[in-house]
Amino acid sequence: MPGDKETHRIEAFSDGVFAIAITLLILEIKIPNHDAVTIHGLGHELLALWPAYLAFLVSFVTILVIWVHHHWMFTLIRRADHLFLYWNGLLLMLVTIVPFSTGLLAEYLSHPEARIAASLYTGNFLTIALAFHGLWRYASLRGRLLEKSNLSADQCEVARLTNHYQWAPLLYLLVFMLSFLSELLSISACLLLAFAFSLRGWPTPGWR
Amino acid sequence: MPGDKETHRIEAFSDGVFAIAITLLILEIKIPNHDAVTIHGLGHELLALWPAYLAFLVSFVTILVIWVHHHWMFTLIRRADHLFLYWNGLLLMLVTIVPFSTGLLAEYLSHPEARIAASLYTGNFLTIALAFHGLWRYASLRGRLLEKSNLSADQCEVARLTNHYQWAPLLYLLVFMLSFLSELLSISACLLLAFAFSLRGWPTPGWR
Amino acid sequence: MPGDKETHRIEAFSDGVFAIAITLLILEIKIPNHDAVTIHGLGHELLALWPAYLAFLVSFVTILVIWVHHHWMFTLIRRADHLFLYWNGLLLMLVTIVPFSTGLLAEYLSHPEARIAASLYTGNFLTIALAFHGLWRYASLRGRLLEKSNLSADQCEVARLTNHYQWAPLLYLLVFMLSFLSELLSISACLLLAFAFSLRGWPTPGWR
Amino acid sequence: MPGDKETHRIEAFSDGVFAIAITLLILEIKIPNHDAVTIHGLGHELLALWPAYLAFLVSFVTILVIWVHHHWMFTLIRRADHLFLYWNGLLLMLVTIVPFSTGLLAEYLSHPEARIAASLYTGNFLTIALAFHGLWRYASLRGRLLEKSNLSADQCEVARLTNHYQWAPLLYLLVFMLSFLSELLSISACLLLAFAFSLRGWPTPGWR
Repeated sequence: MPGDKETHRIEAFSDGVFAIAITLLILEIKIPNHDAVTIHGLGHELLALWPAYLAFLVSFVTILVIWVHHHWMFTLIRRADHLFLYWNGLLLMLVTIVPFSTGLLAEYLSHPEARIAASLYTGNFLTIALAFHGLWRYASLRGRLLEKSNLSADQCEVARLTNHYQWAPLLYLLVFMLSFLSELLSISACLLLAFAFSLRGWPTPGWR
Repeated sequence: MPGDKETHRIEAFSDGVFAIAITLLILEIKIPNHDAVTIHGLGHELLALWPAYLAFLVSFVTILVIWVHHHWMFTLIRRADHLFLYWNGLLLMLVTIVPFSTGLLAEYLSHPEARIAASLYTGNFLTIALAFHGLWRYASLRGRLLEKSNLSADQCEVARLTNHYQWAPLLYLLVFMLSFLSELLSISACLLLAFAFSLRGWPTPGWR
Repeated sequence: MPGDKETHRIEAFSDGVFAIAITLLILEIKIPNHDAVTIHGLGHELLALWPAYLAFLVSFVTILVIWVHHHWMFTLIRRADHLFLYWNGLLLMLVTIVPFSTGLLAEYLSHPEARIAASLYTGNFLTIALAFHGLWRYASLRGRLLEKSNLSADQCEVARLTNHYQWAPLLYLLVFMLSFLSELLSISACLLLAFAFSLRGWPTPGWR
Repeated sequence: MPGDKETHRIEAFSDGVFAIAITLLILEIKIPNHDAVTIHGLGHELLALWPAYLAFLVSFVTILVIWVHHHWMFTLIRRADHLFLYWNGLLLMLVTIVPFSTGLLAEYLSHPEARIAASLYTGNFLTIALAFHGLWRYASLRGRLLEKSNLSADQCEVARLTNHYQWAPLLYLLVFMLSFLSELLSISACLLLAFAFSLRGWPTPGWR
């Protein structure tokens, strides 16, 4: 019972942080100001915000997929210890940075120095992928915090997640490197990766 | 048990997003600045904010009704699968956009280009109605995620919701088209629709 | 079970709105800008923010007391019906307006037109007191949504709350009228009232 | 059952406030504006934000540790009374002030008047340490709100927390005094203290 309660509050706090971070994203799309609208028209000014819409879309979908994975992971985790709270806290910190890197990208994607904004943006996701890998590794190594279960269905789920979180840092590293070649390409790759990680049934090579 | 827990966290995360989106609306009513107040007086400047108050009221009531329906829907849903999480995520994304479209309307309702702001505003609600329709259709088709129940009371509830979500996209499409004729009329129609959808007992034609 | 679940989500959603509204208050204390600091010094500029600190304190304590009462009320409420959701929604809407009226007071308390800001501020609390009265009246009239109980302890609690919510609108009406005489006095009275309503054991005249 | 429900909502509301306060911190890192970027370049402007990054890091880690302790404390608390709600409210108020003192530090750490910003920042944490001490003292004195238990494991936990919260105000007082000597040193000491309080197993002198 106390163990269950412990996990419950971690999930509630994490849900709160995810929900706020994902909702704050909209604040990074700034409403066009009257001076610019008087000169160019409201339609033109709204179209000129396309980098903000793109950044919003990619960040929203990515945080949503992160939340789904966090949710998925916690269906397998039964206990929590002290260090686990801080691994989870590290993940949450990196997620709360997303509204900042999203705002930076929204502001500077159509600017000569877009490269820096895109590298910080994709770099933020790379650190999240690393933290996720660390969190899951800490929880799952020798089944530390997992449900003790011999059900092959559960084992299969564990294998799937391990597989996902092994590939994620590598894939996001590639996207990060891509950001030095082309900003738009690397951001599109982020969206693509988010869709890839939203798939439940990846092949699980090398595990049973 | 795991199924129940799963639905619980979806509801908690959704409640978080709804609660934040509905509370962020107030940030779109900007406090009058000192320069304008010195010239026209505080009372005058506060009265000039009427488009912001109207937009706040309509958006608050609409999000509240959306939350009530989400809540109602989940009293009938017992399971969640992977795709359902993303249908729900799409709905949440469209809801988090409401503070932006509300701010746009608040800023530009008494401006020559109010039409664009009103169309985007009502268009946002149209997409929410479509996403709601899709979410419910996905959950309820052949009872996929519903409680297996032969109680006629439950079946009646299901029929009621299906009926609501069949009409919603059509009604919001009309409101969207109305926004091209008159901004104020279309926004009043949004308020009217929110009240209509707050009624529990619609007649349910064509269902048993 | 479904009834219990229903109340649970209303409380979770309300807690979310209360928590966000109370935390957004801090955003109304604006960090002094560099130009003013260069001229007058940081210490001077921070002291000049006293109306913002006062408004923050009064609003925080008041929303906290409102939350405690909401919490208290729900320990006695067992069921929820459709109309109750909207009574609760009205209360939440008026609470989310508090950050706006707080910001307005913070900005204009030391301004010639402070009267308007103070009247809107105390008026906001008056409407909350009225909505609270209505919410409780709806829930408690002939025990509509309350636990069916013959325990005199519970009956005593019900009487206490009814007593509180009968006096609240009248007391806040007096504070609202006081705001036309003296802004500072009416705001101090708000703080005093919040402390009065934080007391659990009021005398309950005219009830058993 | 009612007692359990009571603690549950206090935790939910507190989690909400903690989650929002910790997520609002990122809003204090302001995206560089276009004029400054045109002159100095985006890279330079982002590097110049180092005080904001430092303040964000220290505040995030500190609020996280406060949440972990709040969570820890509540695994031992079983009941809540009226006064306890207000002790908890005081703690939450001081936590919601952190985004303001963080923003102040971010803005003025590299300014001649950094001392005032650093003193208010460390002073904020000192008041939190005092409120935590008071909250725990109120809950634990003669086991007022604790689980009635003879398990030595639980008694050991209680002793650990009492020990932590006895030292915290003293240590934060030292950090506060340090802020008058060196801003950077005092902020580094905050980070150090957060790490110290994240350790579970302190020696517990003078208790059994």
